[in-house]
Amino acid sequence: MIIDVHGHYTTAPKALESWRNRQIEAIAGKGHAPRADELRIGDDELRESIESNQLRLMRERGIDLTIFSPRASFMAHHIGDFAVSSAWAAICNELCYRVSRLFPDHFVPAAMLPQSPGVDPATCIPELVRCVEEFGNVAINLNPDPSGGHWNSPPLWDRHWYPIYEKMVEYDIPAMIHVSTSCNPSFHTTGAHYLNADTTAFMQCLTSDLFKAFPTLRFVIPHGGGAVPYHWGRFRGLAQELKKPLLADHLLHNVFFDTCVYHQPGIDLLTRVIPVDNILFASEMIGAVRGVDPETGHYYDDTKRYVEAAHVEAGERRRIYETNARRVYPRLDQRLNAKGH
Amino acid sequence: MIIDVHGHYTTAPKALESWRNRQIEAIAGKGHAPRADELRIGDDELRESIESNQLRLMRERGIDLTIFSPRASFMAHHIGDFAVSSAWAAICNELCYRVSRLFPDHFVPAAMLPQSPGVDPATCIPELVRCVEEFGNVAINLNPDPSGGHWNSPPLWDRHWYPIYEKMVEYDIPAMIHVSTSCNPSFHTTGAHYLNADTTAFMQCLTSDLFKAFPTLRFVIPHGGGAVPYHWGRFRGLAQELKKPLLADHLLHNVFFDTCVYHQPGIDLLTRVIPVDNILFASEMIGAVRGVDPETGHYYDDTKRYVEAAHVEAGERRRIYETNARRVYPRLDQRLNAKGH
Repeated sequence: MIIDVHGHYTTAPKALESWRNRQIEAIAGKGHAPRADELRIGDDELRESIESNQLRLMRERGIDLTIFSPRASFMAHHIGDFAVSSAWAAICNELCYRVSRLFPDHFVPAAMLPQSPGVDPATCIPELVRCVEEFGNVAINLNPDPSGGHWNSPPLWDRHWYPIYEKMVEYDIPAMIHVSTSCNPSFHTTGAHYLNADTTAFMQCLTSDLFKAFPTLRFVIPHGGGAVPYHWGRFRGLAQELKKPLLADHLLHNVFFDTCVYHQPGIDLLTRVIPVDNILFASEMIGAVRGVDPETGHYYDDTKRYVEAAHVEAGERRRIYETNARRVYPRLDQRLNAKGH
Repeated sequence: MIIDVHGHYTTAPKALESWRNRQIEAIAGKGHAPRADELRIGDDELRESIESNQLRLMRERGIDLTIFSPRASFMAHHIGDFAVSSAWAAICNELCYRVSRLFPDHFVPAAMLPQSPGVDPATCIPELVRCVEEFGNVAINLNPDPSGGHWNSPPLWDRHWYPIYEKMVEYDIPAMIHVSTSCNPSFHTTGAHYLNADTTAFMQCLTSDLFKAFPTLRFVIPHGGGAVPYHWGRFRGLAQELKKPLLADHLLHNVFFDTCVYHQPGIDLLTRVIPVDNILFASEMIGAVRGVDPETGHYYDDTKRYVEAAHVEAGERRRIYETNARRVYPRLDQRLNAKGH
């Protein structure tokens, strides 16, 4: 079985974006905020948006199942206040839940949180609870920078975030650390902000003792870990300067990297440097990079091709594709066990 | 000849830091700002600080010459106003110049600029001119985020920066794009902020047509280009989405990466992915990572070992070590030619 731990609903029907635009206009004083029940998307529309896009590519590439969360760039936690984020997160999470009901063998939901800059993350707990208990979500996406590129929240080791971590530990769910759209003109969203956030989050873990406080807390750092594996020697050396334990002991029970790296040399480095048990297959398809690589004739984001060609043994590849995901996402494992997988 | 294009004066005598501390205290209203001539460091002290540190390691490792600039983390452009940065840059640049006079065969100076948040970069021109014309500097370090982690300056493609670029073109000198200390608690200085800045700067170049406006402008992206080479497929794909030319045509006449990547797999990826003519040997020694790697028994920042072991031919290695640097830093080349090298 091949599990893609990083998929977003980037192909939702246009009605979703229109609803969001009305919500944003209302913040600016233009018209009334739409009610949740004003968004009407039928099952056929959902089915079509998935079957002709993600599911089609999953079938072509041989991916069985995707952990599926709302579109990352659309989370845009910097827009409006908590009420705005709350209404928006509820709608987006419900759509991913519906996709998971329509395609129960292929999509398992992960939740976005109704984060808002300067607002206590504890306010996200009710939505998190609903997504896990009612919708069967197996993970959350946690945005370390709800400001969208101004980076004015406390670092991930700060007690600010503990309410989320306590609930994650209670439910035994991991968080993918994933920012959203940058509203800072310095940072291109998918070319700089995403990768910077990955590196920043990792370093916040490295400098702290967060995983002593929460030994079972698990973070998935997307986009192949940002700059981290490429600079693994630098990070090992910095941990040494800071008198931290070896990274294997300090972090690697808790931090995992996905394979969203869109060329063969990157995946080769990732699998050479990072222990195989810390690598989770993913493609973030359909996402930031949708084209065909003229150097290979294949889609950049067809990461399975790179993993197939990487120098790992068959047993190791199986861990990257399936076993690690089932260990890091125990609620996914339970679901699969219940289905006899 | 082996040229290290990325060295900072991290080992300056303590008197320098004391002077700076007095300057910073004066900003906070404690005492008077020190005058420049209150800093007294003798030639013997300078000599000792270099001979026992950088020059000792250069000799041990077989590095002939270092392009030497003021300590990056000490630039701290976010402290005080333009007058503060101006006094501080003048002092730091003068010290590097003196080092280059004491060790003319081994150190060639590059300048820090007296940048200050919100201040027109044109104010940096007099110091730049002094450093090139009086001190023989062959390059500058340009900080794309003088705020120290708040990223509130315009992107590098903005006309805001053009006065600097015009002077760079006139003098035919490159800029290393190098941030300084982070005062944003989200970002660890050397583990996150530096690498993020590298990635951010590259992406600012990618999304813009800066090098159409300045065809001979040259940027060196340090720390192996941040996350860029590891994600080269992502960047190629993003350029394609943005309808930009192939990166080789769009950027690679103007953007160069150094080899400050502190483990073998990183250098192997860099040399596999980036054309050899865009790679400049560097170690940033003595810098962020000073320890010995227990996995190899050698210093993390002994990057020459990695370049020696990389799969590049002897002729290519010579370009990484010397020829590329002489092409990208023509004033260095002139100096070396004048000495018969």
